[in-house]
Parts: sequence; structure tokens; C-alpha cells
Amino acid sequence: MKAFSKNQLQRYPVYLKFFKTLIEEGKKDVSSPYIAKALGYSEEQIRKDLQAVSSEPGVPKKGRDLYRLVETLEQFLGYRDSTTAVLIGAGHLGRALLNYPNFEEMGLSIVAAFDVDDKVIGEKIGGKDVFPLDRLPNLLPRLNAHIAIVCVPGSAAQEVADLAVESGARALWNFAPVHLSVPDDVVVENVNLASSLAVLSHRLNIELSKE
Amino acid sequence: MKAFSKNQLQRYPVYLKFFKTLIEEGKKDVSSPYIAKALGYSEEQIRKDLQAVSSEPGVPKKGRDLYRLVETLEQFLGYRDSTTAVLIGAGHLGRALLNYPNFEEMGLSIVAAFDVDDKVIGEKIGGKDVFPLDRLPNLLPRLNAHIAIVCVPGSAAQEVADLAVESGARALWNFAPVHLSVPDDVVVENVNLASSLAVLSHRLNIELSKE
Repeated sequence: MKAFSKNQLQRYPVYLKFFKTLIEEGKKDVSSPYIAKALGYSEEQIRKDLQAVSSEPGVPKKGRDLYRLVETLEQFLGYRDSTTAVLIGAGHLGRALLNYPNFEEMGLSIVAAFDVDDKVIGEKIGGKDVFPLDRLPNLLPRLNAHIAIVCVPGSAAQEVADLAVESGARALWNFAPVHLSVPDDVVVENVNLASSLAVLSHRLNIELSKE
Repeated sequence: MKAFSKNQLQRYPVYLKFFKTLIEEGKKDVSSPYIAKALGYSEEQIRKDLQAVSSEPGVPKKGRDLYRLVETLEQFLGYRDSTTAVLIGAGHLGRALLNYPNFEEMGLSIVAAFDVDDKVIGEKIGGKDVFPLDRLPNLLPRLNAHIAIVCVPGSAAQEVADLAVESGARALWNFAPVHLSVPDDVVVENVNLASSLAVLSHRLNIELSKE
């Protein structure tokens, strides 16, 4: 399987969302210059990105067929198959993710949540049961879940990651603001709000210092 | 002001969190090899990162003083000053962010929320008032907020971004899964869950295809 760069992979959902909006607006085709203007990527990058997932060339002066592009991208991103995940840590952020309406259309199905807090265990959040964390080793394989979404505080994250990996998780989507150590064949993708805020603040300070 | 790369900036909060954990564990110094082993970055990268924010060299065989490192990083990241932000869109994700306990320690103070939904306007979420969105132009300058956190659905995000910029926002922290077009002197930092999930799914599929 061809490995794509992280930056490139991150652009595909942005294209897909944009193409779906154009279809809703009644458009049938789209050209690279048009995409470039709307999304701020270079035309060359857009052509490369789209050629990497589709062998079909664009038609000069007309562009590419939007329905075919959406179909191709949804297939490439796995939105047409469903991947099963469990979520660990039903605090504020965990709750928000359990209630997030868009995961299903991205092919991500969160089937259960786990927590250590007796106050939330037994609750249903976003239609999913919250189980005690110590049932994870038993339930994760039975639910056939490959992905564990880690939404616990940083201080508990490594322990939870270890438990998830021992229970059979092959990928961790980590929302805790810490580095997780896992075996080489386990995938970790971090959503670190502190890191994102550091980038934002630094750039804002550069802008403000120009005044 | 020196511009740091995005990847480098993203690492500083991870260092900071790690150093604070070490202090909690009673440690006083830390060496680059020790950091490298725990965080998975190369020793060379760690030395470069730390030298870029601190002129103080490490002591051979002992390393760097953890208290000084934490002080330096907190200052560099602006955690010791407070930046004021407003949040637009008090849905599930917006609520989670309004209740997120860690922003204050990162120097981010969310002082108000805005929404168009009569059902949430007038509510207090995480101690912050939810105002009608049409009051943003009036309130944003009065609150002296530089940052607008955009948590609305993708279909409303550009319109909300335009309103925030017209109202005086200098930086947008965008959680909507779409590209935002803004003037050159306005900063946009995206937290795109669809993009992060695309990276996770692709890497997971590579791992699973090895079996």
C-alpha cells in the first residue's frame, strides 16, 4: 500500500467537504484553478493530490466531474466502509465526541464508551453505553474495535493506552496532551489542543508585533 | 520576532507537559537522551528545540534544570500572560471547549460564547454567558478579544469567520471542517478532526494490510 504524507492525507477531507458543498450549490465540474482559489493550495499541489487517488484526468477548460471526485475520495478515505472504535474517558471532550454527528459519514462508528467514574458508568451518551474501564479487555475484541479514542486526562493516558493495546487496539486516536509510548505496530494519531494553540498564539503574536 | 516552524511549535507544549510530570515525580534535572527515549523525538532535535528558546546550556551528565525549563517554556508559550478569546457556536464541541479545564493554564481565557440558537442564548456554560451572535460586532472589541474560536457547522463557518474578522478578531481557531478565507493579516489555525482521522485510518490500514 502506497504511503501518503501526513500533510497530503490531511488535505483530502478538506477537498471532499468542498466538493460536496459545490454539488449542493448545483455545480457539476470543478477545475484546479477554482479549487486553488477557494482553498488556498497551489494548483500544482491540487493536481498532484487528485492524480494520486484518481487515474481519471480532468477535461481541459471544464475540469473534473464532481460526483466522480466525491466517490473517489470517499472510497480512498474509507468513508464507505465502517471502522469500529471505542472511546475511553467520557468527560467533557469525550461526551462531545460521542455526540459528534459527523463521524458516521466519515466511516467511523463509535460503539461504546468506557470510564472509571461510577457517576457516568451505566449512562447512555449519544446513544452509546458507558462501561466500566476494567471491562475493556473483555469487550474490545468482542466489539471487533480496532481504534481506541483516548479522552482521559494526561496523567492517566499512558495507563489507558497500555490497557487498550493489551486489549487488542491497533490504533489510538489520542486527545490527551501527552506523548503515548506504544509498540511499533500500533498507530497513534494525536489531536493536541495545546500544540494547536501554541501555533495560533505564536502567529498571532507575530501579527500583533507588526503594529 | 523569529518565526518557528509549525512542527517545532507543536512540540513545545509536549515538552512542557512532560517536564511538569517529571517535577511532580520529584526529579530536578533532565537530559536530552532521557527526553528522547520518553517522547520519541531525536536527541539532536530536542537540543535544537531547547536551544531555540533558552540560551542556558545543559550540564554534562546531569542535563538541564527542570524548573528553569518549565519557566522558559511557559514564558515562550505565553502561558504566563492571558490571551482573551470568544467562542462561536455552543454545540457539543463548543460546550466541551467552554468546559475544558486546561485552557486557563495555557494562558487562554474564553470570556464569552455566541450562538444563533434561542435555546442556548442566555445560558451559562462553563461559567461563560452565551450571547446572540449579532452582538459579536459590539461585544468583541469591548471584551478586547483577539481570538475567535469557531465551533459552528461547516456550512456556517465562512460567514461566522467573516463576521468575526469584521468585528476585529485577529486570529481564528477553526474547529469547523472547512477552509476559511481571511485577509492576510488574520491568523487561522485549524483543528480538523476529519483530517486527523484520515491520517489515522490510512496508517491503520497499512498496519492491517501487513497481516
